[in-house]
Amino acid sequence: MADILHRVGIRASADAVYRALTTQQGLAGWWTSQTKGDGDQVGKIIEFRFGAGGFDMRVVTLTPPMFIRWEVATGPEEWLGTTIEFELKQDGEYTIVLFKHLDWKEPVEFMHHCSTKWAIFLMSLKSLVESGKGNPDPHDVKIDNWN
Amino acid sequence: MADILHRVGIRASADAVYRALTTQQGLAGWWTSQTKGDGDQVGKIIEFRFGAGGFDMRVVTLTPPMFIRWEVATGPEEWLGTTIEFELKQDGEYTIVLFKHLDWKEPVEFMHHCSTKWAIFLMSLKSLVESGKGNPDPHDVKIDNWN
Repeated sequence: MADILHRVGIRASADAVYRALTTQQGLAGWWTSQTKGDGDQVGKIIEFRFGAGGFDMRVVTLTPPMFIRWEVATGPEEWLGTTIEFELKQDGEYTIVLFKHLDWKEPVEFMHHCSTKWAIFLMSLKSLVESGKGNPDPHDVKIDNWN
Repeated sequence: MADILHRVGIRASADAVYRALTTQQGLAGWWTSQTKGDGDQVGKIIEFRFGAGGFDMRVVTLTPPMFIRWEVATGPEEWLGTTIEFELKQDGEYTIVLFKHLDWKEPVEFMHHCSTKWAIFLMSLKSLVESGKGNPDPHDVKIDNWN
Protein backbone atom coordinates (compact mmCIF):
# COMPACT_ATOMS: atom_id res chain seq x y z
CA MET A 1 0.00 0.00 0.00
CA ALA A 2 1.14 3.55 -0.68
CA ASP A 3 -0.08 6.88 0.67
CA ILE A 4 -0.12 10.51 -0.43
CA LEU A 5 0.54 12.90 2.47
CA HIS A 6 0.44 16.70 2.60
CA ARG A 7 0.46 19.53 5.15
CA VAL A 8 -0.76 23.09 4.67
CA GLY A 9 -1.32 25.83 7.23
CA ILE A 10 -4.25 28.19 6.80
CA ARG A 11 -4.55 31.52 8.61
CA ALA A 12 -8.17 31.02 9.62
CA SER A 13 -10.28 29.21 12.19
CA ALA A 14 -10.75 25.46 12.06
CA ASP A 15 -14.48 26.15 11.63
CA ALA A 16 -13.82 28.09 8.43
CA VAL A 17 -11.60 25.32 7.02
CA TYR A 18 -14.10 22.65 8.06
CA ARG A 19 -16.88 24.50 6.20
CA ALA A 20 -14.74 24.59 3.05
CA LEU A 21 -14.37 20.80 3.33
CA THR A 22 -17.98 19.89 4.11
CA THR A 23 -20.23 22.17 2.05
CA GLN A 24 -20.95 22.18 -1.67
CA GLN A 25 -20.11 25.87 -1.87
CA GLY A 26 -16.79 25.36 -0.08
CA LEU A 27 -15.70 22.30 -2.06
CA ALA A 28 -16.69 23.96 -5.35
CA GLY A 29 -14.50 26.89 -4.38
CA TRP A 30 -11.20 25.01 -4.23
CA TRP A 31 -11.44 21.52 -5.78
CA THR A 32 -13.85 21.49 -8.68
CA SER A 33 -16.55 23.94 -9.72
CA GLN A 34 -18.63 20.89 -10.65
CA THR A 35 -19.34 19.70 -7.10
CA LYS A 36 -22.77 18.37 -6.20
CA GLY A 37 -23.86 17.72 -2.63
CA ASP A 38 -22.75 18.68 0.84
CA GLY A 39 -20.44 16.54 2.94
CA ASP A 40 -21.83 17.57 6.30
CA GLN A 41 -23.35 14.24 7.36
CA VAL A 42 -21.97 10.72 7.53
CA GLY A 43 -23.36 8.59 4.72
CA LYS A 44 -23.79 11.43 2.25
CA ILE A 45 -22.34 11.13 -1.24
CA ILE A 46 -20.56 14.11 -2.81
CA GLU A 47 -20.14 14.13 -6.59
CA PHE A 48 -17.01 15.76 -7.98
CA ARG A 49 -16.69 16.17 -11.75
CA PHE A 50 -13.72 17.39 -13.78
CA GLY A 51 -13.08 17.85 -17.47
CA ALA A 52 -11.50 14.41 -17.63
CA GLY A 53 -13.87 12.45 -15.37
CA GLY A 54 -14.69 12.47 -11.72
CA PHE A 55 -15.22 10.82 -8.39
CA ASP A 56 -18.06 10.18 -5.96
CA MET A 57 -17.03 10.31 -2.31
CA ARG A 58 -18.92 8.78 0.58
CA VAL A 59 -18.53 10.64 3.87
CA VAL A 60 -17.64 7.98 6.44
CA THR A 61 -16.34 9.92 9.45
CA LEU A 62 -16.92 13.47 10.69
CA THR A 63 -15.63 15.00 13.93
CA PRO A 64 -16.43 18.71 13.56
CA PRO A 65 -14.34 20.73 13.13
CA MET A 66 -11.27 18.48 13.37
CA PHE A 67 -11.58 15.39 11.19
CA ILE A 68 -13.14 14.27 7.92
CA ARG A 69 -12.84 10.91 6.19
CA TRP A 70 -14.19 10.01 2.75
CA GLU A 71 -14.25 6.70 0.93
CA VAL A 72 -14.06 6.67 -2.84
CA ALA A 73 -17.47 5.36 -3.96
CA THR A 74 -16.84 5.62 -7.70
CA GLY A 75 -13.86 6.90 -9.65
CA PRO A 76 -10.88 5.78 -11.69
CA GLU A 77 -9.83 2.20 -11.02
CA GLU A 78 -6.68 3.27 -9.13
CA TRP A 79 -8.78 5.26 -6.64
CA LEU A 80 -11.15 2.42 -5.72
CA GLY A 81 -10.44 1.16 -2.22
CA THR A 82 -8.60 4.33 -1.26
CA THR A 83 -9.56 6.68 1.56
CA ILE A 84 -9.11 10.43 1.97
CA GLU A 85 -8.63 12.14 5.32
CA PHE A 86 -8.39 15.74 6.45
CA GLU A 87 -7.16 16.25 10.03
CA LEU A 88 -7.37 19.84 11.30
CA LYS A 89 -5.59 21.29 14.32
CA GLN A 90 -4.88 24.72 15.65
CA ASP A 91 -1.28 25.93 15.86
CA GLY A 92 -1.08 29.59 16.83
CA GLU A 93 -2.81 31.67 14.16
CA TYR A 94 -2.89 28.71 11.75
CA THR A 95 -5.24 25.83 11.22
CA ILE A 96 -2.97 23.01 10.13
CA VAL A 97 -4.45 20.54 7.63
CA LEU A 98 -2.87 17.10 7.59
CA PHE A 99 -4.08 15.48 4.41
CA LYS A 100 -3.87 11.78 3.58
CA HIS A 101 -4.96 9.86 0.49
CA LEU A 102 -4.42 6.35 1.80
CA ASP A 103 -4.11 2.78 0.55
CA TRP A 104 -3.18 3.04 -3.10
CA LYS A 105 -2.58 -0.54 -4.26
CA GLU A 106 0.56 0.41 -6.20
CA PRO A 107 2.72 3.56 -6.52
CA VAL A 108 1.75 3.95 -10.18
CA GLU A 109 2.61 6.98 -12.33
CA PHE A 110 -0.96 8.27 -11.89
CA MET A 111 -0.34 8.34 -8.12
CA HIS A 112 2.70 10.59 -8.69
CA HIS A 113 0.43 12.92 -10.69
CA CYS A 114 -2.33 12.90 -8.08
CA SER A 115 0.15 13.64 -5.30
CA THR A 116 1.37 16.82 -7.00
CA LYS A 117 -2.17 17.76 -7.98
CA TRP A 118 -3.41 17.37 -4.38
CA ALA A 119 -0.71 19.83 -3.27
CA ILE A 120 -1.97 22.30 -5.86
CA PHE A 121 -5.60 21.88 -4.75
CA LEU A 122 -4.70 22.17 -1.05
CA MET A 123 -2.98 25.46 -1.87
CA SER A 124 -6.24 26.41 -3.61
CA LEU A 125 -8.11 25.52 -0.37
CA LYS A 126 -5.68 27.73 1.58
CA SER A 127 -6.24 30.58 -0.86
CA LEU A 128 -10.03 30.20 -0.76
CA VAL A 129 -10.24 30.28 3.02
CA GLU A 130 -7.67 33.06 3.48
CA SER A 131 -8.68 35.34 0.63
CA GLY A 132 -12.13 34.19 -0.53
CA LYS A 133 -10.80 32.99 -3.89
CA GLY A 134 -9.53 29.52 -4.75
CA ASN A 135 -8.52 27.97 -8.06
CA PRO A 136 -10.87 25.02 -8.57
CA ASP A 137 -11.04 23.03 -11.79
CA PRO A 138 -11.26 24.24 -14.57
CA HIS A 139 -9.23 27.20 -13.32
CA ASP A 140 -6.68 25.02 -11.50
CA VAL A 141 -2.92 25.29 -11.96
CA LYS A 142 -1.81 22.75 -14.57
CA ILE A 143 1.16 20.57 -13.66
CA ASP A 144 1.74 18.24 -16.60
CA ASN A 145 0.29 16.79 -19.82
CA TRP A 146 -2.46 15.01 -17.87
CA ASN A 147 -3.78 18.19 -16.27
CA MET B 1 9.17 2.87 4.86
CA ALA B 2 7.24 5.69 3.21
CA ASP B 3 7.82 7.60 -0.01
CA ILE B 4 7.00 11.01 -1.44
CA LEU B 5 6.07 10.84 -5.14
CA HIS B 6 5.37 13.61 -7.64
CA ARG B 7 4.93 14.14 -11.38
CA VAL B 8 5.34 17.36 -13.34
CA GLY B 9 5.50 17.92 -17.09
CA ILE B 10 7.81 20.56 -18.48
CA ARG B 11 7.53 21.98 -22.00
CA ALA B 12 11.25 21.75 -22.73
CA SER B 13 13.88 19.24 -23.75
CA ALA B 14 15.13 16.60 -21.32
CA ASP B 15 18.59 18.19 -21.72
CA ALA B 16 17.29 21.51 -20.40
CA VAL B 17 15.60 19.85 -17.41
CA TYR B 18 18.68 17.74 -16.73
CA ARG B 19 20.85 20.86 -16.65
CA ALA B 20 18.51 22.47 -14.12
CA LEU B 21 18.98 19.38 -11.92
CA THR B 22 22.74 18.97 -12.22
CA THR B 23 24.29 22.45 -12.24
CA GLN B 24 24.72 24.94 -9.40
CA GLN B 25 23.09 27.65 -11.50
CA GLY B 26 20.11 25.45 -12.33
CA LEU B 27 19.54 24.17 -8.79
CA ALA B 28 19.89 27.69 -7.35
CA GLY B 29 17.23 28.80 -9.79
CA TRP B 30 14.43 26.60 -8.45
CA TRP B 31 15.28 25.01 -5.08
CA THR B 32 17.41 27.33 -3.01
CA SER B 33 19.43 30.39 -3.95
CA GLN B 34 22.05 29.14 -1.48
CA THR B 35 23.26 26.17 -3.53
CA LYS B 36 26.96 25.33 -3.65
CA GLY B 37 28.42 22.84 -6.09
CA ASP B 38 27.41 21.13 -9.30
CA GLY B 39 25.77 17.72 -9.41
CA ASP B 40 27.18 16.67 -12.75
CA GLN B 41 29.44 13.83 -11.60
CA VAL B 42 28.84 10.80 -9.42
CA GLY B 43 30.44 11.26 -6.01
CA LYS B 44 30.08 15.03 -5.91
CA ILE B 45 28.45 16.69 -2.91
CA ILE B 46 25.96 19.53 -3.43
CA GLU B 47 25.27 21.85 -0.48
CA PHE B 48 21.78 23.28 -0.19
CA ARG B 49 21.09 25.89 2.50
CA PHE B 50 17.78 27.43 3.52
CA GLY B 51 16.76 29.95 6.16
CA ALA B 52 15.96 27.15 8.57
CA GLY B 53 18.84 24.76 7.86
CA GLY B 54 19.94 22.67 4.95
CA PHE B 55 21.05 19.44 3.35
CA ASP B 56 24.13 18.05 1.66
CA MET B 57 23.37 15.64 -1.16
CA ARG B 58 25.76 13.06 -2.58
CA VAL B 59 25.24 12.31 -6.28
CA VAL B 60 25.13 8.51 -6.52
CA THR B 61 23.67 7.80 -9.98
CA LEU B 62 23.57 9.80 -13.21
CA THR B 63 22.22 8.64 -16.57
CA PRO B 64 22.20 11.81 -18.69
CA PRO B 65 19.72 13.15 -19.46
CA MET B 66 17.22 10.66 -18.00
CA PHE B 67 18.00 9.78 -14.40
CA ILE B 68 19.52 11.34 -11.27
CA ARG B 69 19.80 9.85 -7.80
CA TRP B 70 21.04 11.61 -4.68
CA GLU B 71 21.68 10.29 -1.19
CA VAL B 72 21.22 12.61 1.76
CA ALA B 73 24.73 13.05 3.19
CA THR B 74 23.79 15.46 5.97
CA GLY B 75 20.47 17.02 6.91
CA PRO B 76 17.64 16.81 9.42
CA GLU B 77 17.44 13.50 11.24
CA GLU B 78 14.28 12.45 9.35
CA TRP B 79 16.09 12.82 6.00
CA LEU B 80 19.07 10.62 6.88
CA GLY B 81 18.90 7.32 5.03
CA THR B 82 16.52 8.71 2.43
CA THR B 83 17.17 8.90 -1.30
CA ILE B 84 15.97 11.36 -3.94
CA GLU B 85 15.37 10.42 -7.58
CA PHE B 86 14.45 12.35 -10.69
CA GLU B 87 13.41 10.23 -13.68
CA LEU B 88 12.98 12.15 -16.95
CA LYS B 89 11.15 10.97 -20.04
CA GLN B 90 9.84 12.53 -23.19
CA ASP B 91 6.08 12.56 -23.84
CA GLY B 92 5.16 14.66 -26.86
CA GLU B 93 6.22 18.24 -26.26
CA TYR B 94 6.75 17.56 -22.53
CA THR B 95 9.62 16.23 -20.49
CA ILE B 96 7.92 14.33 -17.69
CA VAL B 97 9.70 14.38 -14.34
CA LEU B 98 8.87 11.49 -12.01
CA PHE B 99 10.18 12.54 -8.63
CA LYS B 100 10.68 10.23 -5.63
CA HIS B 101 11.92 10.97 -2.12
CA LEU B 102 12.24 7.41 -0.89
CA ASP B 103 12.61 5.47 2.34
CA TRP B 104 11.37 7.75 5.08
CA LYS B 105 11.45 5.67 8.28
CA GLU B 106 8.04 6.94 9.42
CA PRO B 107 5.25 9.04 7.84
CA VAL B 108 5.82 11.84 10.37
CA GLU B 109 4.17 15.26 10.19
CA PHE B 110 7.42 16.71 8.77
CA MET B 111 7.10 14.27 5.86
CA HIS B 112 3.61 15.65 5.10
CA HIS B 113 5.17 19.14 5.02
CA CYS B 114 8.07 18.08 2.80
CA SER B 115 5.70 16.35 0.37
CA THR B 116 3.71 19.54 -0.22
CA LYS B 117 6.88 21.61 -0.32
CA TRP B 118 8.46 19.32 -2.94
CA ALA B 119 5.39 19.90 -5.14
CA ILE B 120 5.88 23.65 -4.79
CA PHE B 121 9.58 23.39 -5.67
CA LEU B 122 8.93 21.10 -8.64
CA MET B 123 6.50 23.71 -9.96
CA SER B 124 9.33 26.20 -9.47
CA LEU B 125 11.59 23.90 -11.54
CA LYS B 126 8.91 23.81 -14.26
CA SER B 127 8.66 27.58 -14.19
CA LEU B 128 12.44 28.05 -14.32
CA VAL B 129 12.92 25.78 -17.32
CA GLU B 130 9.85 27.01 -19.22
CA SER B 131 10.15 30.74 -18.53
CA GLY B 132 13.66 31.35 -17.17
CA LYS B 133 12.37 32.28 -13.72
CA GLY B 134 11.80 29.94 -10.78
CA ASN B 135 10.88 30.67 -7.16
CA PRO B 136 13.76 29.27 -5.11
CA ASP B 137 14.11 29.84 -1.35
CA PRO B 138 13.86 32.54 0.04
CA HIS B 139 11.33 33.53 -2.66
CA ASP B 140 9.45 30.23 -2.49
CA VAL B 141 5.70 29.92 -2.02
CA LYS B 142 4.97 29.42 1.69
CA ILE B 143 2.61 26.59 2.56
CA ASP B 144 2.30 26.57 6.36
CA ASN B 145 3.78 27.82 9.65
CA TRP B 146 6.99 25.85 9.06
CA ASN B 147 7.73 27.50 5.72
